[in-house]
Amino acid sequence: MSDTRDSSSESVITQGAEIYALAERLWPLNRSISGEGLRETLRILQEFVPELELIEVPSGTRAFDWTVPEEWEIREAWIADEDGNRIIDFADNNLHLVGYSTGVDQTMSLDELQPHLHSLPEQPEAIPYVTSYYERNWGFCLSQNQREALVPGNYRVRIDARHFGGSITLAEAVFPGKTGDEVLFSTYCCHPSMANNELSGPCVAAALAGIIRKMPERRLSYRFVFVPETIGSLAYLSRNLESLKKKVISGFNLTCLGDERAWSYLPSRDGNTLADRVAQHCLKHLAPEFKRYEWRHRGSDERQYCAPGVDLPVASVMRSKYHEYPEYHTSLDRLGRTVTANGLADTVRLYKTMIEVMENNTRPTAVVLGEPQLGRRGLYARTSKAGSAEPSRAILELLTWADGTNDLIDIAERGRMPAWDLLGPLQILVNEGLVDCARTQEASGRRPHSYLVK
Amino acid sequence: MSDTRDSSSESVITQGAEIYALAERLWPLNRSISGEGLRETLRILQEFVPELELIEVPSGTRAFDWTVPEEWEIREAWIADEDGNRIIDFADNNLHLVGYSTGVDQTMSLDELQPHLHSLPEQPEAIPYVTSYYERNWGFCLSQNQREALVPGNYRVRIDARHFGGSITLAEAVFPGKTGDEVLFSTYCCHPSMANNELSGPCVAAALAGIIRKMPERRLSYRFVFVPETIGSLAYLSRNLESLKKKVISGFNLTCLGDERAWSYLPSRDGNTLADRVAQHCLKHLAPEFKRYEWRHRGSDERQYCAPGVDLPVASVMRSKYHEYPEYHTSLDRLGRTVTANGLADTVRLYKTMIEVMENNTRPTAVVLGEPQLGRRGLYARTSKAGSAEPSRAILELLTWADGTNDLIDIAERGRMPAWDLLGPLQILVNEGLVDCARTQEASGRRPHSYLVK
Amino acid sequence: MSDTRDSSSESVITQGAEIYALAERLWPLNRSISGEGLRETLRILQEFVPELELIEVPSGTRAFDWTVPEEWEIREAWIADEDGNRIIDFADNNLHLVGYSTGVDQTMSLDELQPHLHSLPEQPEAIPYVTSYYERNWGFCLSQNQREALVPGNYRVRIDARHFGGSITLAEAVFPGKTGDEVLFSTYCCHPSMANNELSGPCVAAALAGIIRKMPERRLSYRFVFVPETIGSLAYLSRNLESLKKKVISGFNLTCLGDERAWSYLPSRDGNTLADRVAQHCLKHLAPEFKRYEWRHRGSDERQYCAPGVDLPVASVMRSKYHEYPEYHTSLDRLGRTVTANGLADTVRLYKTMIEVMENNTRPTAVVLGEPQLGRRGLYARTSKAGSAEPSRAILELLTWADGTNDLIDIAERGRMPAWDLLGPLQILVNEGLVDCARTQEASGRRPHSYLVK
Repeated sequence: MSDTRDSSSESVITQGAEIYALAERLWPLNRSISGEGLRETLRILQEFVPELELIEVPSGTRAFDWTVPEEWEIREAWIADEDGNRIIDFADNNLHLVGYSTGVDQTMSLDELQPHLHSLPEQPEAIPYVTSYYERNWGFCLSQNQREALVPGNYRVRIDARHFGGSITLAEAVFPGKTGDEVLFSTYCCHPSMANNELSGPCVAAALAGIIRKMPERRLSYRFVFVPETIGSLAYLSRNLESLKKKVISGFNLTCLGDERAWSYLPSRDGNTLADRVAQHCLKHLAPEFKRYEWRHRGSDERQYCAPGVDLPVASVMRSKYHEYPEYHTSLDRLGRTVTANGLADTVRLYKTMIEVMENNTRPTAVVLGEPQLGRRGLYARTSKAGSAEPSRAILELLTWADGTNDLIDIAERGRMPAWDLLGPLQILVNEGLVDCARTQEASGRRPHSYLVK
Repeated sequence: MSDTRDSSSESVITQGAEIYALAERLWPLNRSISGEGLRETLRILQEFVPELELIEVPSGTRAFDWTVPEEWEIREAWIADEDGNRIIDFADNNLHLVGYSTGVDQTMSLDELQPHLHSLPEQPEAIPYVTSYYERNWGFCLSQNQREALVPGNYRVRIDARHFGGSITLAEAVFPGKTGDEVLFSTYCCHPSMANNELSGPCVAAALAGIIRKMPERRLSYRFVFVPETIGSLAYLSRNLESLKKKVISGFNLTCLGDERAWSYLPSRDGNTLADRVAQHCLKHLAPEFKRYEWRHRGSDERQYCAPGVDLPVASVMRSKYHEYPEYHTSLDRLGRTVTANGLADTVRLYKTMIEVMENNTRPTAVVLGEPQLGRRGLYARTSKAGSAEPSRAILELLTWADGTNDLIDIAERGRMPAWDLLGPLQILVNEGLVDCARTQEASGRRPHSYLVK
Repeated sequence: MSDTRDSSSESVITQGAEIYALAERLWPLNRSISGEGLRETLRILQEFVPELELIEVPSGTRAFDWTVPEEWEIREAWIADEDGNRIIDFADNNLHLVGYSTGVDQTMSLDELQPHLHSLPEQPEAIPYVTSYYERNWGFCLSQNQREALVPGNYRVRIDARHFGGSITLAEAVFPGKTGDEVLFSTYCCHPSMANNELSGPCVAAALAGIIRKMPERRLSYRFVFVPETIGSLAYLSRNLESLKKKVISGFNLTCLGDERAWSYLPSRDGNTLADRVAQHCLKHLAPEFKRYEWRHRGSDERQYCAPGVDLPVASVMRSKYHEYPEYHTSLDRLGRTVTANGLADTVRLYKTMIEVMENNTRPTAVVLGEPQLGRRGLYARTSKAGSAEPSRAILELLTWADGTNDLIDIAERGRMPAWDLLGPLQILVNEGLVDCARTQEASGRRPHSYLVK
């Protein structure tokens, strides 16, 4: 990520190293569900996604059943021993402070301090990630090793924080396409210094936005949403629900995208949306060993996007899933360990393929009755003999399933081939006037999308 | 079963020992598809189910394709040897006489007698159970050992029986609930002294009636039907078909309920009624090793209840199924061997759970969009950290599937948890105003039932 | 196949040896997609299927996307060495000449000749089958052994052939039944001397036509179509499409029917037509080891019959499937090796069973409510005892599933018995007035057919 890189064309990051460099740059910022760490993160992302617009939602705003909380500002936070040594310091690691801690400046005994300390006995070197957004509280997180080194005595505890009527910050970028149908990518920026969950999400989102910007023409629109988890997606949904329900035909919650240890698929609540179908189809061909979770294993913003009555077609394609890897929600979830340049690059490649399939999806209809004469169009070996070349299976599968009910993913599944192997042959058939790809507008993303391939 | 026990409240039997004692009391009566043995059985059952009304259906009455046969009265029946010793005597065991035998008083050679004898060469100690309801005939059943001990000579055969224009006797008890939706329990009382098939059926039915009577409030109505098998259920159906088709949403044929060797599930003809769904769900969680039969293995009154055009949602949850245990339809099917107090008690417990699930079944609908804020309602750990307590999975599963299309059994299946674990959490969500359990009236029991949980 | 055999009644061939003899008689004719070899084949078939009408479709006629090509006439074709020895001669084997070769009379070096030669290096003794219908070309096919024996030098190549405005020849025979519903059998006659693919097809078709002619009464109509593959079925469809779509409820492409090595099932494109259901049901019971192909393995005229918009219910039940046996499309596919009398006879037997099931298929409806009293009709053992005879399971399965939604194949599948075991019992139940087999007319063969069994 060179400093000399300028504006639009240069701001596309597609290489693993570039995405990783972005993650390194965002690493030290203290993100939370509100505040300057969040805003600064979004401003840096704007360098790579200039289309990104920031939206401030004031404290006190209703978001369905929720209320946007006060903004949180933190200047310093530490625990000092009797000699004044800052033995735990937020300046060393954002995770040392319980998120949304109230201010405190007090000297207390170790016994009084203990209830405010959080550590993980079974992972003695890890600092846990703890927050208390909706109940006023304060606390420090530290490794079990640090905790056990504390000696009886008095400790000065200082947290210079304030809660005030401010706002939470959302961001969105829309890349319009020829049709009103939209693919939604949502990711969250509220996690302080942790890598797979969750610097990988916004960094991969930025990379995908760049890829989409550079597409020569877009059939679909693409919407990127960067929000604090839960309250952010709720606030975003409460402002945009009807419009999203009309437009979005497929969507993904971008989270846990950085490691190289696993591929994971979590369905939408519906389980059979275009997002689910394209995800499973691409994973099956590109990462056949992927782990298939069920909806009951959900745990991120898909809970909001797929809630009853919201019903957006949002699935998740992840690497190692939240809750399922040992470093999750601790200081061990760090760059180089749970996020690698290769991991990020492979993730981007898979999503790029899913985008390509969705972008070109269609329900072709045969124009002629019976099989067309491929030979006179040069699509069939003209001298037939055993073992000689045949017309591509892709062409035959497209023609036979082109009854207007099957989309490209259906045809690929029936033919047991990847959908992307159908794209060239489909173009040939359209050019030859043998199939028609009439557009089928469909509501709410529950059914796969179709449009005219030209 | 003390003689000092009086009327209503005392007549509830729920303990295995009490149900077993009832079976012992009913044991000696000579039941058949008509007659005093049947009536006396029903009268004793009335002590425990005072709501039970006896219905006499006269001989000659049409019941669909059938005609109610003449009543059968039997005073004595025996075979005596040349010395006048009663070597086979109905007074010793009801099974010695072929059911519905005609009267006879005749001396005959062993050769002449043989065609009237029934025994089981492969079970030499067992007396088989044989009837001849619709063809006039007489015969004796005896063990193969007894038969082989017969010596050539003359035997006096005496059966003091008569067939006459009387009636068969049905009985029903209805426990009304707040809604018109009804659960049907049918059992049969036409089997003489045999235990699993079939004293277990009426005895468990009596226990379940007591449990239902004591429910503080009932959403559903419950109908108990005690009939002679086949002709009784046909006669009952022919009198009540339209009404039953309107009301019954779930039903069970109560048979073979007393041993401890197996759990068995026989589906309704439809296979996917509420009865089937609740049976499979409860068995899966409480007796996961249960044996799953197919409709082609049917053999009792479900044949009538599920016949084409009748189409009632009647399944069977049994212990060792008829035809499938060695003592079936022989004198070896006796109390203590094929029916135990523990076996009866466990059966009652399982049915009680099925009743609880049906009684509380509903299709909840979420009231708020997006996930509600559980934290401020005390339903979520307010300080989130890795490994800390989460809101109960039950609450989250209820909220996410509360789209008005899933009933409690669906939600439990999707969440891979027993439906009864959802009942408390559902009550909390209803109380908090987060879900609405609108009643969905459904005809014919083919779809699960819903009502308002308050 | 005796010469003294005369007209109609004698012309039925059902024995394997008779069918095999017909194949031997047709063997030497040089069939192609047009011409005298094809016509002579059809004329011989007319001896066995006098109902067969020949239809000439002139060159230049449009058939959907195709145009009927010129007719091809071949008088002689050979390659001679410098000594005038005819080293490759069409007179020795029809396969030596590329089908539809243009005329040529020329002397050329071996190097010039090579591009016109076709052989199979991996099957050095086999002459491959090669055609060039739609691109003007000429060539010779020979075994790899023959080819390697060629020495450098000059060769005279002579093909006395002409292409001219003539016609292709189709043939059809219709055996009308009481209802308008029709079963279609299509086979093709365009292959020169090869046995399994494809003398077995027309020969088995002739045998089946004889069986159908002799049926004492037919509920269904049966249509036999003999065509050159692809262009013939397209031409036939383009002339008859609307009528076929109205009438045909089931159909089969008769191909590869002669060997004893395998049974194969290729579904229709729909996959669930009556043809598919009857094929799978009969194969499951009669040849349970049959190989199940998928639609993507198609390769014959089912491609036309099942094309989008044509949508006829045509499946294939084959022995060793085209492309799947080593002799396919070579001179090794010869009588005695890939076609045997036994193989043909077993194939005819299987199709006869499928015809019997389709002919008798129905959706019975119970006339009485509840189970009818079988005993008084002699359909049930009147004295019931453990282990005694029960009414046939077939009768009970018919009665319980007779709700008007299940056809015989459904009932047989549910009862896990062959459909033909239901036919006698169904007749009994109809005679007894217990079930009614009302006719259910259904369009386009997508649903199983029903009619009144009397």
